[in-house]
Amino acid sequence: MWTFYYAPNTISLATLIALEAAGAPYQITRLDFSANEQRSAGYLKINPKGRAPSLALGDGTILTETPALLAFIAQSFPQARLAPADPVGFAKAQEFNAYLCATVHVAHSHRIRGARWANEEASFEDMRRKVPQSVREAFQVIEDHYLQGPWVLGEAWSICDAYLYTLSQWLEADGVDPGAVPRVADHRARMGELPAVRAALAKERA
Amino acid sequence: MWTFYYAPNTISLATLIALEAAGAPYQITRLDFSANEQRSAGYLKINPKGRAPSLALGDGTILTETPALLAFIAQSFPQARLAPADPVGFAKAQEFNAYLCATVHVAHSHRIRGARWANEEASFEDMRRKVPQSVREAFQVIEDHYLQGPWVLGEAWSICDAYLYTLSQWLEADGVDPGAVPRVADHRARMGELPAVRAALAKERA
Repeated sequence: MWTFYYAPNTISLATLIALEAAGAPYQITRLDFSANEQRSAGYLKINPKGRAPSLALGDGTILTETPALLAFIAQSFPQARLAPADPVGFAKAQEFNAYLCATVHVAHSHRIRGARWANEEASFEDMRRKVPQSVREAFQVIEDHYLQGPWVLGEAWSICDAYLYTLSQWLEADGVDPGAVPRVADHRARMGELPAVRAALAKERA
Repeated sequence: MWTFYYAPNTISLATLIALEAAGAPYQITRLDFSANEQRSAGYLKINPKGRAPSLALGDGTILTETPALLAFIAQSFPQARLAPADPVGFAKAQEFNAYLCATVHVAHSHRIRGARWANEEASFEDMRRKVPQSVREAFQVIEDHYLQGPWVLGEAWSICDAYLYTLSQWLEADGVDPGAVPRVADHRARMGELPAVRAALAKERA
């Protein structure tokens, strides 16, 4: 049995959706970010980076990092068809996920995690002021070039959709009008109706 | 024939090393960052993100993002054994590469790319002052937990080594004493002797 360490309202949701869509057998352990539990001694033994999420496979193996977890779940449950199996199709999925991880998520993180990259309150304020622009520009690239429709990779739903959905939930909080990226907003609305997404949200909020 | 679009002294080197190690047939097209060629109309048609590197497969397919490119090259040339083939081993490689992409590289980028995330010169200066600490801390996690030795994933050399080597070349410029992370420094020295690395550096500098 796998154990998934997660925190509500974080990027953990993308992996939770993939676990649900795969029909994976797993249990969940919730981390309380308000109590800084992700930096506790116990959790640092599981994930020395002190971040969520982590997936423990039950044999001592711990996996972290959302793009790695999503691809691993897809490869572990091929019958669920959560990612293209051919190398080029798989690479397109990975390309999309890497962009979400290193550009979209990082732009978002400057609203609340400025202390990772600077020390002064004035810098944090400057970063927060820029987030609506940097996040909108990052989503605009997706809107214009990478959301093939109806799903990210075209006709087949994939791990990329779970990941995009999770980040697009934060648009308003990041000061971006979803109307500025209507295809992303439409994708978000359709995602919210899927059983795997509903199940993941219910687990997260339980 | 593949075409690899790259810029010298950038993260492109990781993929160039992988292409050399795979024995892939490819030609290279150099982008002049000093002339902002990565933002030219011609290149934006290839990569709308305006970043390097990009790999054109010759059939109209363009792939971008270093973690995606590295995994794609490994999967396209399985006989070169550039990544574990089993899902757990592959996931450990991907986990490492995602950390380099979204944490290590992003920490580094705050020295010279602050305008992505803020607007004020004072903020850029604050970011630059923090880079020696944030980059060192990011490498310390690798030093302590993720560099199994002798190579990143243990006995077998992999795409992770090409990626780590590329980022570790920037330690001094980022204000980090390589002596603070001696296992990373030793890895860098051993990497510099490999034929694929020498060939990639020669192509980059040609």
